[in-house]
Amino acid sequence: MYAIRLGDDGAELRPLEPWHAEEFLAHLERGREFINQYVPFGSRATDVPTAREALQRYADLRAADTASLHGLWLDGRLVGGVLTLHFDAENGTCEVGCWLEPAATGRGLVTRAMRVLIDWAVEQRGIHRVEWVAAAGNESSLNTARRLGMTRDGVRREAHLHHGVRHDLEVWSVLAPEWRRTRARADR
Amino acid sequence: MYAIRLGDDGAELRPLEPWHAEEFLAHLERGREFINQYVPFGSRATDVPTAREALQRYADLRAADTASLHGLWLDGRLVGGVLTLHFDAENGTCEVGCWLEPAATGRGLVTRAMRVLIDWAVEQRGIHRVEWVAAAGNESSLNTARRLGMTRDGVRREAHLHHGVRHDLEVWSVLAPEWRRTRARADR
Amino acid sequence: MYAIRLGDDGAELRPLEPWHAEEFLAHLERGREFINQYVPFGSRATDVPTAREALQRYADLRAADTASLHGLWLDGRLVGGVLTLHFDAENGTCEVGCWLEPAATGRGLVTRAMRVLIDWAVEQRGIHRVEWVAAAGNESSLNTARRLGMTRDGVRREAHLHHGVRHDLEVWSVLAPEWRRTRARADR
Amino acid sequence: MYAIRLGDDGAELRPLEPWHAEEFLAHLERGREFINQYVPFGSRATDVPTAREALQRYADLRAADTASLHGLWLDGRLVGGVLTLHFDAENGTCEVGCWLEPAATGRGLVTRAMRVLIDWAVEQRGIHRVEWVAAAGNESSLNTARRLGMTRDGVRREAHLHHGVRHDLEVWSVLAPEWRRTRARADR
Amino acid sequence: MYAIRLGDDGAELRPLEPWHAEEFLAHLERGREFINQYVPFGSRATDVPTAREALQRYADLRAADTASLHGLWLDGRLVGGVLTLHFDAENGTCEVGCWLEPAATGRGLVTRAMRVLIDWAVEQRGIHRVEWVAAAGNESSLNTARRLGMTRDGVRREAHLHHGVRHDLEVWSVLAPEWRRTRARADR
Amino acid sequence: MYAIRLGDDGAELRPLEPWHAEEFLAHLERGREFINQYVPFGSRATDVPTAREALQRYADLRAADTASLHGLWLDGRLVGGVLTLHFDAENGTCEVGCWLEPAATGRGLVTRAMRVLIDWAVEQRGIHRVEWVAAAGNESSLNTARRLGMTRDGVRREAHLHHGVRHDLEVWSVLAPEWRRTRARADR
Repeated sequence: MYAIRLGDDGAELRPLEPWHAEEFLAHLERGREFINQYVPFGSRATDVPTAREALQRYADLRAADTASLHGLWLDGRLVGGVLTLHFDAENGTCEVGCWLEPAATGRGLVTRAMRVLIDWAVEQRGIHRVEWVAAAGNESSLNTARRLGMTRDGVRREAHLHHGVRHDLEVWSVLAPEWRRTRARADR
Repeated sequence: MYAIRLGDDGAELRPLEPWHAEEFLAHLERGREFINQYVPFGSRATDVPTAREALQRYADLRAADTASLHGLWLDGRLVGGVLTLHFDAENGTCEVGCWLEPAATGRGLVTRAMRVLIDWAVEQRGIHRVEWVAAAGNESSLNTARRLGMTRDGVRREAHLHHGVRHDLEVWSVLAPEWRRTRARADR
Repeated sequence: MYAIRLGDDGAELRPLEPWHAEEFLAHLERGREFINQYVPFGSRATDVPTAREALQRYADLRAADTASLHGLWLDGRLVGGVLTLHFDAENGTCEVGCWLEPAATGRGLVTRAMRVLIDWAVEQRGIHRVEWVAAAGNESSLNTARRLGMTRDGVRREAHLHHGVRHDLEVWSVLAPEWRRTRARADR
Repeated sequence: MYAIRLGDDGAELRPLEPWHAEEFLAHLERGREFINQYVPFGSRATDVPTAREALQRYADLRAADTASLHGLWLDGRLVGGVLTLHFDAENGTCEVGCWLEPAATGRGLVTRAMRVLIDWAVEQRGIHRVEWVAAAGNESSLNTARRLGMTRDGVRREAHLHHGVRHDLEVWSVLAPEWRRTRARADR
Repeated sequence: MYAIRLGDDGAELRPLEPWHAEEFLAHLERGREFINQYVPFGSRATDVPTAREALQRYADLRAADTASLHGLWLDGRLVGGVLTLHFDAENGTCEVGCWLEPAATGRGLVTRAMRVLIDWAVEQRGIHRVEWVAAAGNESSLNTARRLGMTRDGVRREAHLHHGVRHDLEVWSVLAPEWRRTRARADR
Repeated sequence: MYAIRLGDDGAELRPLEPWHAEEFLAHLERGREFINQYVPFGSRATDVPTAREALQRYADLRAADTASLHGLWLDGRLVGGVLTLHFDAENGTCEVGCWLEPAATGRGLVTRAMRVLIDWAVEQRGIHRVEWVAAAGNESSLNTARRLGMTRDGVRREAHLHHGVRHDLEVWSVLAPEWRRTRARADR
């Protein structure tokens, strides 16, 4: 029922919930290889019940106010999403992340959605530090962090095991005052 | 982050969640006597922790896809809300309800919000029967049911104990085809 | 261990519990088609483990004091049962229901058992309103409601999806003072 | 609703359930010192909520089929009870126990109730070994074990800490064939 | 990480935990028939997931401080273990038990490990009564009880169903003062 | 029962468990201000029940194999401890941490304990990356990381809110091959 228009090209952000299981699965099937290149997002969702389980885990985390999952729809088709993770309102910190199927790349969808999501986290929920974690070779993800005005905090060396190989994880972040300055500049 | 404009008077519908506990409590304090006239909505929420508990119960039901809670904001102030209850997507049935503080009455807020909520239930979630339950003397609630094009199914005699007195509960409903006809007429 | 004689024809009412799983399954197998004509009672119980699960769900509801399940034995054979549902001692309301295999119909077994069950609910547990819900075409069930002195409260239109078809649900009820009058007349 | 007459003196055995909390508390208050002489039965139940909690623990164990709690009513007053504990239908073993308030002693109430309970365990549930555990000095309890035809299996030395003192626990038992012989003799 | 040397022959006692599942399974496979001669220890652990489940059950009991599981390693190979059961620090009682694969018998491994375990229970945790339960024909187990200075408390007749046959269970015990005297004598 | 000698000065490492609640509380009382200077370890443990709760949380995490808590005893007195956190055997990563009361500082206790703990994580459990997180100004903690041969991965800017002030968190790590080289050098 809720939807946020992200521009004039038919892009919308909506809560992604367990009842979207079939749509979520079809989307994953279109983008599985691409989406799982660096992280195992959705890799356990291989049929409708497991897709529902994956979405249910996020629904439960959302009820606990520690995560939230949002889908990106383009002309009515689910093509990716953004999420908050390790959301800790008391400590004022959260992580944010994203995924896209190949057909939806190159349009700035994630950047547009992230602006909405981080605005909400910072201005509505009092988050002070928003963190972005990307596998070291994931240029597309690192570019998004740059585009969002984030700073590179460091590299958690070999912290991630994926497809049998250890990967460095880059940690980027933006703090609330930085975010507000970036937004103010963008609005001028 | 999500919000649906309900008109030009600053009325908005948004998810109402545990982190709104303080705002929810302040709203209840303004309208407690009025809100609890017929049903005990929010009556256990008497300080911030119990207000958070009340909202958490709905957050948990939402994660289970059996209820959803939405606040009505007027010029940025929480003044009431609408909800789904006993939401059963498999059987195609749900109940809907509402509450308002006195200052927000007389503006058709609930009717406007209900149209959004029932549209979603019927068109997005496949609900066939939407039920409305009102205490027999609650004219304002019964009028809303009429305004939404609902039909009176019957009276569950003395089914509700409130403030030590037994009340009849009127049961009204609208079925999906009826809802669509009503909406079509309204759009002409 | 507990049993209530319902007359001189060998009919008895007893708690129906998880350890009856095999007996319950055999009974369902004899009456499945007939029992599931209007409601899906026991339809998930298709072998001993699922029969035990079905009974365990009622055992758990009983421990929470929100339901109770009682079997009807005729000459030592389980042939049906009666139950309370949505039992709410605080609000003074409950629903009651029943099921029978074909061989046990036509003897007034349910009516006899219901008298015991409703007496207990009203006189021991302080229930004020006892509700009976029946699919609109289920004449046998509607007749039992009449025989128990119940009043028709209304019809929840198309509220029940069964075997792919929507059914109206009739709601009947008897209130504590009505029940006592009916019982007093019967005892004269 | 279920009740088993234990004789002509108004003694009855009934399920003892959480909704009996007030009655259970009143009974404990009349007999607390006597009841707790050897075992701490009911010692945590000191007001209505804690009495309900004590009964709820047994209700939960009953739902899991590992215990059952039965009250003894004399002329409509709850005066004691009998119970099964460590009920293990798969292994064919259980423990049984009892308690009484002083006014109800000397009438053979426990012996009468135990016959019903052990008959059910042995004949309905397939229990092979019924165990009785009594503090070494508890002559009244030991006499009941003798009266039920039980055999002394041994003494678990200093196994029970009660009121700061260690007590031996006598273990008695009756096996299914022994129980049947005892019952057959009694019926002659 | 923790290990207790039990002598000069390479015998060690260590916590046995879920991550040992593969090692535990291999050990059971070597000794299954022998280990299950009298009790069903480990009989449900037939592959790595069920072996992990078996160890997880003990890990959960340990977190609740009601049991603890310790493996016996001989030259780096898991060959058996000792455990506490029904550990009740408040009441000052626990049961202890053991199992071995055939290749590890005849070396006094259990006796050595038990001395460490009972010392800890008695001296660190305040256990007053340590109980040993053995099937009546299990001479090896009964001899260990004797070797530990335990006393025979009695025989729970036909209390144990194993492989379709009922077995008597002997109950032995040692009390804290007895244990200390035995240890003092041994140290002289 | 398990203990690891850390040298000739009476220092020992042992599992720290819920039954240590009183000892843990006494230790916290001696060092609370010092221990909580940078992180809130143990700050909720203010009496025996809350101290037990704090230890129980770690006991539950240990049963889930995601953390472990170990106390440091000096001449029989609990003076601090080390722990694993976010232990993820599948991904091969964990965090380690420590705390001390003032009287126990300056003896290299944490470094000695960490060597045992990291050896176990790396050699027994297959952990590839061991992480150390310290508040930016906590020189003592940063020095321990250096002493353990760790590398500074970066600074999570203002990630930690403590006593109302935001602190940078330094992230250090050592990888399994690095750890082995460091240990080999130390052993020469």
